[in-house]
Amino acid sequence: MPNFALESQGARVIADLSSDTHWTKERTWNILDILTYNWYSEKKHRTVIQGRPSLNPGECWPFKGDQGHLFISLSHPVNISHVTLGHITERQSPTGTIPSAPREFSVYGFTTTDDEGVFLGGHVYERDGPAYQTFTMPNPNIGVFGYVKLVIENNWGEKNHTCVYTFKVHGTIPT
Amino acid sequence: MPNFALESQGARVIADLSSDTHWTKERTWNILDILTYNWYSEKKHRTVIQGRPSLNPGECWPFKGDQGHLFISLSHPVNISHVTLGHITERQSPTGTIPSAPREFSVYGFTTTDDEGVFLGGHVYERDGPAYQTFTMPNPNIGVFGYVKLVIENNWGEKNHTCVYTFKVHGTIPT
Amino acid sequence: MPNFALESQGARVIADLSSDTHWTKERTWNILDILTYNWYSEKKHRTVIQGRPSLNPGECWPFKGDQGHLFISLSHPVNISHVTLGHITERQSPTGTIPSAPREFSVYGFTTTDDEGVFLGGHVYERDGPAYQTFTMPNPNIGVFGYVKLVIENNWGEKNHTCVYTFKVHGTIPT
Repeated sequence: MPNFALESQGARVIADLSSDTHWTKERTWNILDILTYNWYSEKKHRTVIQGRPSLNPGECWPFKGDQGHLFISLSHPVNISHVTLGHITERQSPTGTIPSAPREFSVYGFTTTDDEGVFLGGHVYERDGPAYQTFTMPNPNIGVFGYVKLVIENNWGEKNHTCVYTFKVHGTIPT
Repeated sequence: MPNFALESQGARVIADLSSDTHWTKERTWNILDILTYNWYSEKKHRTVIQGRPSLNPGECWPFKGDQGHLFISLSHPVNISHVTLGHITERQSPTGTIPSAPREFSVYGFTTTDDEGVFLGGHVYERDGPAYQTFTMPNPNIGVFGYVKLVIENNWGEKNHTCVYTFKVHGTIPT
Repeated sequence: MPNFALESQGARVIADLSSDTHWTKERTWNILDILTYNWYSEKKHRTVIQGRPSLNPGECWPFKGDQGHLFISLSHPVNISHVTLGHITERQSPTGTIPSAPREFSVYGFTTTDDEGVFLGGHVYERDGPAYQTFTMPNPNIGVFGYVKLVIENNWGEKNHTCVYTFKVHGTIPT
């Protein structure tokens, strides 16, 4: 299924309408890092919509705590039929568990960045499932949306932060 | 088959002998972008010879219109037996069609950047074929070439621009 | 098996305790390259611990001659049961041979960067084997190590340099 939340295809994260990046690791900041701080912060957001062929532990967008959201400008306005959420599996994790994985989440569609949004569906990312989990949005004909907001409601137990590895939006361009 | 047009192995695009990059999307230019404009433009050319394991929509080198060419310094002088041209498939495309894919193309071999070049073969990239399509060059013993020019003659219908995702040159190092 | 020498998970190369990068190819240095020289040199070291899903010829960390070492701070202190060493195969190589591949190598574990280290095992990377070769470390319970030193003793015949593509450290976090 084509993915309309793909950066290379024109999708973008709108940082001002998304949760902040949370720096989970001690980081040595050099002068170039500081000069390019905003770029670097956005780079973390962008990880989520880069359609990476494989997921490595830690190559995610981390936000603080267990509730956060990401606001995405899609590459095309579409009727949304499915979304895919990706995280490393328990087997890939060094500890054998994935407490910082998203658990309950909701998806909203927007036609502009200012409107109230339409609830498209809510699901649970399964802790012991495959890396990429695809979910049906029950009413693809409820509207044509150029923007999507992913809202993570909670995670699998990590208090400090939550990690979002990849998110895809599937559907059809209206004819 | 080894690929002699692979950047990591030493191949390079010669930008001065290639068509210009065409910016197909609105782009917000920041100061760092402007300072590194040449670098960025070359980066797009280089996409074609980076041997990416998977192709994402938009991760291509775009040139204006439907005729363009790319001049590549190979990693080794070789007898050229095949070339591979890659593009996303119709199924991967958000619109279900790939009008900006190359259609008819020709390949020329050069021993220096100044000589006239030798025609090695012409083929058609099929619109409804696989992402990577490999073509035979009929006379691998016609010469040993350190440079290759890929000439795209037309595309599958897009007037504005053509997208080249990946190009590989196969053959053997003369003994 | 989880990999504890993975950069995205928190592992780092300690450049001061590792062999220098050897520039095997003529390189055109621009001003940005010079300003970011240390960053670029470290970037080469880091290639080894980035867990790339595929290996391209030349995307390696090259060191001078046939003896060199890499000192890695692991993402977690672990009992080490296996290591994996990766290199392009002979079939992938443009010349059909891989003289710059590691041959005999040893692995040492450290609890600090200052101690003497513990010999964990020595093996041979086979020239005609698969790209990724995994080796057993015979005594995983010999200790818990936060650092690993990979020592390449010799290579498959290239006098000028040796190329290390990827290195992984497997084991278990002590309970």
